[in-house]
Amino acid sequence: MASRGFCRELYSCIFDYSTPRIALIKSRKVGVMNRLIQLGILAYVIGWVFVWEKGYQEFDTVVSSVTSKVKGVAVTNTSALGTRIWDVADYVIPPQEENAFFVMTNLIITQNQTQGHCPDLPDQSTICNSSHDCIPGFISTHSFGVQTGQCVAYNETVKSCEVYAWCPVENDTELPEPAFLKEAENFTVLIKNNIWFPKFNFSKRNILPNVTTSYLKTCLYDRMHNPFCPIFRLGSIVSEAGESFRDMAIQGGVMGIQIRWDCDLDKKFSKCVPRYSFRRLDSRELDHNVSPGYNFRSAKYYKNINDVESRTLMKVYGIRFDILVFGTATVLCDVIVFQFFKKRYYYREKKFKHVEDYDELSGNEEHGSNP
Amino acid sequence: MASRGFCRELYSCIFDYSTPRIALIKSRKVGVMNRLIQLGILAYVIGWVFVWEKGYQEFDTVVSSVTSKVKGVAVTNTSALGTRIWDVADYVIPPQEENAFFVMTNLIITQNQTQGHCPDLPDQSTICNSSHDCIPGFISTHSFGVQTGQCVAYNETVKSCEVYAWCPVENDTELPEPAFLKEAENFTVLIKNNIWFPKFNFSKRNILPNVTTSYLKTCLYDRMHNPFCPIFRLGSIVSEAGESFRDMAIQGGVMGIQIRWDCDLDKKFSKCVPRYSFRRLDSRELDHNVSPGYNFRSAKYYKNINDVESRTLMKVYGIRFDILVFGTATVLCDVIVFQFFKKRYYYREKKFKHVEDYDELSGNEEHGSNP
Amino acid sequence: MASRGFCRELYSCIFDYSTPRIALIKSRKVGVMNRLIQLGILAYVIGWVFVWEKGYQEFDTVVSSVTSKVKGVAVTNTSALGTRIWDVADYVIPPQEENAFFVMTNLIITQNQTQGHCPDLPDQSTICNSSHDCIPGFISTHSFGVQTGQCVAYNETVKSCEVYAWCPVENDTELPEPAFLKEAENFTVLIKNNIWFPKFNFSKRNILPNVTTSYLKTCLYDRMHNPFCPIFRLGSIVSEAGESFRDMAIQGGVMGIQIRWDCDLDKKFSKCVPRYSFRRLDSRELDHNVSPGYNFRSAKYYKNINDVESRTLMKVYGIRFDILVFGTATVLCDVIVFQFFKKRYYYREKKFKHVEDYDELSGNEEHGSNP
Repeated sequence: MASRGFCRELYSCIFDYSTPRIALIKSRKVGVMNRLIQLGILAYVIGWVFVWEKGYQEFDTVVSSVTSKVKGVAVTNTSALGTRIWDVADYVIPPQEENAFFVMTNLIITQNQTQGHCPDLPDQSTICNSSHDCIPGFISTHSFGVQTGQCVAYNETVKSCEVYAWCPVENDTELPEPAFLKEAENFTVLIKNNIWFPKFNFSKRNILPNVTTSYLKTCLYDRMHNPFCPIFRLGSIVSEAGESFRDMAIQGGVMGIQIRWDCDLDKKFSKCVPRYSFRRLDSRELDHNVSPGYNFRSAKYYKNINDVESRTLMKVYGIRFDILVFGTATVLCDVIVFQFFKKRYYYREKKFKHVEDYDELSGNEEHGSNP
Repeated sequence: MASRGFCRELYSCIFDYSTPRIALIKSRKVGVMNRLIQLGILAYVIGWVFVWEKGYQEFDTVVSSVTSKVKGVAVTNTSALGTRIWDVADYVIPPQEENAFFVMTNLIITQNQTQGHCPDLPDQSTICNSSHDCIPGFISTHSFGVQTGQCVAYNETVKSCEVYAWCPVENDTELPEPAFLKEAENFTVLIKNNIWFPKFNFSKRNILPNVTTSYLKTCLYDRMHNPFCPIFRLGSIVSEAGESFRDMAIQGGVMGIQIRWDCDLDKKFSKCVPRYSFRRLDSRELDHNVSPGYNFRSAKYYKNINDVESRTLMKVYGIRFDILVFGTATVLCDVIVFQFFKKRYYYREKKFKHVEDYDELSGNEEHGSNP
Repeated sequence: MASRGFCRELYSCIFDYSTPRIALIKSRKVGVMNRLIQLGILAYVIGWVFVWEKGYQEFDTVVSSVTSKVKGVAVTNTSALGTRIWDVADYVIPPQEENAFFVMTNLIITQNQTQGHCPDLPDQSTICNSSHDCIPGFISTHSFGVQTGQCVAYNETVKSCEVYAWCPVENDTELPEPAFLKEAENFTVLIKNNIWFPKFNFSKRNILPNVTTSYLKTCLYDRMHNPFCPIFRLGSIVSEAGESFRDMAIQGGVMGIQIRWDCDLDKKFSKCVPRYSFRRLDSRELDHNVSPGYNFRSAKYYKNINDVESRTLMKVYGIRFDILVFGTATVLCDVIVFQFFKKRYYYREKKFKHVEDYDELSGNEEHGSNP
C-alpha cells in the first residue's frame, strides 16, 4: 500500500503541471502602463544589447604582419664629415625590424676611436687638479672608460682624469640644432600590412584590391584625399600627431602608427578597410632632462694596415616608428546565417578582388544589405 | 494611533510573505510537455554552456618567450664574388630578433661604393640628352643620390644625370633567378619556446620532457611522424604552408610559424603540448608589382689605407619568419577542485619531468581522468 | 458583428493586464526566512559581482611603448685580445630593439677569418685518417664549411677533413668560465615606458611626475626602498627572479621584466603606478645540453689592403631582457559618473603633474575618495 501510494505521489510530482493562477484586470490605465513598461524593456534589449553593443555578433581579433620600406636621401655638410650623402642603408638601424623601423635624425659622431689612454670628458666627477683626485679602476657614471689614476690635460684650460677607453672619448655635450638629418622630414615609407582573422579565415591587406600600381607609385597618404594610400611622408606622420618634426628630430622620440581594421564581415568585402592614425608614444618630458627623447649608440668597426681595430662611434638620435595593428571582425552569430554568409563573402572576395573601382573606396554611401 | 498603525503596516510589509497562488493541473499531456521543455533547457545549459563553451572553466592566456637558431651553409659561385661560402653570421640579419628571424635568400650586391659623383641608374626620370635635362639638387624617387646638373655617359649607348651618391650606384633591375641562396631551403632552425600561464603559474617549453638529447640532435619536424621535434627545415615550413620555396626565395616574403598551446590543466601534464602550423603572412600580390615580397638594404662599411670610407651595399631579399605563440589554459572553476588540482598538477609536473616515455606523446589514447 | 467581436478581443488582449494572484502568508517564520534569502542574494550581487568581480566597471587594456638604455663599462684581459674595454656600443647587439635589449655576457671570438681551405673542427663526423673518409661537397651538421675531400692535419695529433669555409674555423668547445663579461652584473639600464589606455584617453609613464631629475641621476631600483626608480642593475634583475647572474652569464638566457599597470581611474592619478617584477623566461634545461641558454653568431667585416674581405666571428652568449607590459584600467560604468569623472581626473592630472611629493609615492595611505 505504502509503495503504491509513493508511486502515485511520484507520478503526480513528475507529471502534474503547476502554474500561477492569473488575475485578469480589465483596466485600460493599468493595461497601457503594463504595455509601456514592456515596450521599454524591448526597446532596451533591441536598442542597447543588439544595436549598440552588437550582442548578436561573434568577434575575432586580428593576426597581422607588417613590413616597411623607407625611401629618401639627405645631404649634409659639416666640418667633421665634409659633404656627405645619407641613404637608407646609412640611416635605418638596424636594417630590418619586425613591427617597427628606426630613422636617424640627429647624430653625434666620434671617428677613429682606438682602445687606449686619454683624458675623460670633463664633468663634476672627472675634472681634477692632480692625480690624487683620480682613483685607478673607478668608472664614473657617465664615462665610457676606466680611470687610470692619472690627471691629464683635456684641453688648454681643463684637466681631467685619464681613462682607458675607446679614445678619443665622445663629446656629446653639444647636440646639433637644427637636427643633422632634418631632411628626414621628407623621407617616405611604404607600409605593407597583411591581416588575418583566424576564426573566419578572412584575410586582407592594406594595399586595397582597387588600388592600381600607377597610383601606388605616385600617391602619398593624406587623411582627407588619400586615406588608403600606404605611403607616408615622415613629416606628415609627426604633424598628424600634433607634434613638430623639427623639434622631435633633435632629441628623437617614438611615434605610433596605428592601423585599425574594424570589419563587419556581413557587409561588403570592400567595406573592410584600414584606418590610420598617428600618436606620439613617448612623452615630451618637459620637466625631466635625464635622457629625454630616443637615442642609442652604434659603432662601425675598422681595421687599419697594422691590424689595429678602430671604430666610428655614433650616438644616434632618431624616431622609432612602432606600427600597432588593432582590429576586430564581427559576424552575425546565427549559425544558419553564418553558414550562408561564409559562402557569400567568399563569393564577394572573388568578385571584388580584381575590380578597380575608386568609388567603392572614397564614397561614403549607405550600407545596402543590413541583415 | 497613527504611529501604531504605521508600525503594524511596516511589520507586515517586512515579514509578510507573498507568494503566487498556484493552480495544479492534473493533466498527463500538459505535464509531459512541461517536463520536456524543462529537459530541453537543462540540456541546453549542460550541453552548450558547459560542454561546448566550457563555461565552467577558468581561462588564462599565455606569456611566451621565443629564441631561434638557424643552421646551414651555402656555397655560391658568381662572376662578381667568385666562389663564396655563406654561413649563419652572413645570412641572418640582424643577428638576433625577439620573436622572429630573417634568412637571406637572394642578393643584389654592390661592392666598393664610395661617396662621389657618378651617372645615376637610367630610368624615365634620369635619362638625359644634355645638362638641361638634369636639375641640380633634384632627388629622383627611385634614386639614392642628388643630381648635380650634369649629363654623363652611363654606358656606351645611354646617358644619364650625374648624381652625388655612394658610387657606383646600385643596379637592381636584374634579380638573380633562381635565387642566389636557394640552398637556404635545406637550412634548419631550432625554435625554443617557453610558455607560462600566470594565473595558474604553469610553465612548459616546446622541448618536451620526454625528448632525449640524442633525439634532438637528429630529429626534424614532420607533421605526421615528428610533430614535437622543435627543429624545422626552412623548405618544409614553406611547403607546409602550401607555398613554393624556390618561388618565395626570389622576391622574399614573410612566413608565420604558429605555435598553439591549448592546455586543459585538469588533464595530464603530458597532454599539454604545442601544435605547430605554418602560414604565409604576406600575400603574393600577383596583381601589384610595386615592392612585392620582402627586401631591405644593408651595408658593410670599410676604410681603406687613406682613411676613405667605402661600403658594400646589399639589397637583401629573404624570408622573415615571425613566430606567433597562441594559447589558452583552462581549469575547472570550482574552488575546492582548483585547490586540490593545484597540488595535483604540481605533483604531476614533478613526476613526469624526467620520464622519457615516447608513448605519452605520440599516442592518441582517451583522456582517462575527466573530473 | 464578427469584426466587432475581433476588435474587442484585440483590445482586451492588448490592454488587459494579467497578474498572478498573490497569497499573503502572515507567518513571521516564513517571512523572516523569505527576507533572509533575499538578503543573501543581495549580498551575493553586491559582494561578489560588484565588489569582488568589479562588474560595475568598464575595462580597457594598455597600449605601451618601451625604450631602454644600458650603461656600464667592463675591462677584460685575455691572451687572445689583450687588455680590452667594452662599452655599450660593443656589447648591446643589435644597438636597438623594440621591446627588448640584449647584453653580451660571454664570448667566443675568432679573429681574422678569411674564405679559404682549412681543417674542420674535429668531431665524430670530421676526424679522418685518409681522404677516403671525407666526401667532397658534404656539409657536417655542426660545421660551417663544405668538405673538399681532403684529409689534413688539424694539429700535431689529430687529422680532420678539409673544408672550404671562413678560416680558421671557430673552436667553441671551451666556453669561458667564469663568463668573459661577468662585470655585466653591475651594468644598469634605464627603462622608459609610456602607457596609454585608449578608451579613457589616459596616459602615464613610469618616470612618475613626482620624481626629480636629481633622484633619477642617483637612484637604483629596489623592491623595498625604491620601487618606482626606473633604473635597474642587471644583477638585481636576475637575482630578484631567483637566479644567479654568474651562472646565467656563462650560457646566456632570457629574462622577462614585467611592468604591471593596474589602474582604478576613479582613484587618484598618483595611485596609478607601475609594479615591476622579474622572471626567467627560458628554462634552465638541466636535462638537455643541446643548445642551452641563449647565444647567436655575429660578425664584423673588414677589408685588408689587397681588398680581401676578412671577418671577426663572435659567438655571443648573453641575456636578452624582454620587457612585458601588462595593464588594465577600470572606470565606473555609470555614464553620469563617467562624464563627471573625466573632468575630474583631467583636473587631477593637471594638478599633480608638477608637484614633487615623495610621500604620495612611498606612503601607503587609505584611498580617500572611493566613489
